[in-house]
Amino acid sequence: MDAMMMGVMSEDMMSMDGMPAMDMAMMQACMDACAACEQACTVCSTQMMDCAPACMNCADMCNTMMRAMMRMQGMTPASMMAMLDACIAMCQTCMDMCMEHADMSPVCKMCADACKACMDACMAMRSAMAAA
Amino acid sequence: MDAMMMGVMSEDMMSMDGMPAMDMAMMQACMDACAACEQACTVCSTQMMDCAPACMNCADMCNTMMRAMMRMQGMTPASMMAMLDACIAMCQTCMDMCMEHADMSPVCKMCADACKACMDACMAMRSAMAAA
Amino acid sequence: MDAMMMGVMSEDMMSMDGMPAMDMAMMQACMDACAACEQACTVCSTQMMDCAPACMNCADMCNTMMRAMMRMQGMTPASMMAMLDACIAMCQTCMDMCMEHADMSPVCKMCADACKACMDACMAMRSAMAAA
Amino acid sequence: MDAMMMGVMSEDMMSMDGMPAMDMAMMQACMDACAACEQACTVCSTQMMDCAPACMNCADMCNTMMRAMMRMQGMTPASMMAMLDACIAMCQTCMDMCMEHADMSPVCKMCADACKACMDACMAMRSAMAAA
Repeated sequence: MDAMMMGVMSEDMMSMDGMPAMDMAMMQACMDACAACEQACTVCSTQMMDCAPACMNCADMCNTMMRAMMRMQGMTPASMMAMLDACIAMCQTCMDMCMEHADMSPVCKMCADACKACMDACMAMRSAMAAA
Repeated sequence: MDAMMMGVMSEDMMSMDGMPAMDMAMMQACMDACAACEQACTVCSTQMMDCAPACMNCADMCNTMMRAMMRMQGMTPASMMAMLDACIAMCQTCMDMCMEHADMSPVCKMCADACKACMDACMAMRSAMAAA
Repeated sequence: MDAMMMGVMSEDMMSMDGMPAMDMAMMQACMDACAACEQACTVCSTQMMDCAPACMNCADMCNTMMRAMMRMQGMTPASMMAMLDACIAMCQTCMDMCMEHADMSPVCKMCADACKACMDACMAMRSAMAAA
Repeated sequence: MDAMMMGVMSEDMMSMDGMPAMDMAMMQACMDACAACEQACTVCSTQMMDCAPACMNCADMCNTMMRAMMRMQGMTPASMMAMLDACIAMCQTCMDMCMEHADMSPVCKMCADACKACMDACMAMRSAMAAA
């Protein structure tokens, strides 16, 4: 998500009931990591290796997570936490499966790296929310 | 999902590593409840009421959940549990928002009912997995 | 989509600017065919056969088509026609690829059948719009 | 999509039956424009203005288009052309609706700009394919 888009998003768009608005730079980084992970997983799934079903699941979850962060008015702290946990778990599953053949497939290596980055970004969001 | 489709799905398609195959009738009911909830939420979101962002989030999560149950080879018990929890939490959020105007909008009432049915179906899956 | 949901959708939800409202039974049949095709393609894609990328593309397009029919306020006759054409073309591509191994895979046969049914339902919508 | 990801995609991933491989820089630009448009439309749809249903339709179509370009093994020239036409038409519809209130909403202005950029990128792909 580019800076221009973040600039026009109002504070209301970034807020959930009962929560202070999230740090915009952290959210932007998390949305970007989700988008990159969806793309990496989509490419990886076309290789017809045994990681493909996990890659497809992870691509869909990352897209759903990214969109939810763009529609925070429709989230609560509880549903946000649960969605972050699901995204982290799905990235973990996909990363584990891709790492099994990362040596022979540079696409699987790239996919595992994108999953790791997305997990880390979601965990940072989770920590920030827990501390708020 | 019709009975014909369930009939051609192999046991391998229904299984996760480290887990016995799920009960097919329970999974079919859960996939159907997710599909119905995605549709109800999508219709409800076009009303431009304040539940719309939650409805869009819930539609995406229910579609992601349904697809994940069709790609169980790419799930682990841990990621499946986390995804079910996220779907339950998102349905709860959407149901709560729609119930606030269920009296004046029959579409919101229908959406809240679909969210409730999807939550119940996901909870049944969750209980069955925890007992396995 | 069940009859209850169709019952609560207003005529406004079924209409595009500059077009009479569509026949509700025909739309319901088309949305159902798209939903069934998305599910069949999603299952088929997990088989890791060479049709899988076409199945994934078709699943996404059918979901997008179904949702667009639930959000007709955001469509014009021109964009509706183009979307129907894309869905028809994508179903054709997926059906052709799945038919190449329908003899050895009952899942591919089921997927090809679902693609054919979705194509036919989209073509019926297209004809009705062209005649309106 | 970053350069690293493009770098690991093989020529096979970029090719359709009966077509030379597409220009990778042009495809990368088109995938990026689709991703940016999906994000802009998703944000715009949360404003609850009358463009919202068109924005949601456009977000879904742009995501489907982007993914199809990452799964070219599952496309034919005919289905690719039809998908590009649908994406162009959907961006046009969304842009037209958002432009009606671009003066009062900077988010609608941003969304219309993203739709225009996505249309242009899809048209460039279309022209290149027609010339091949």
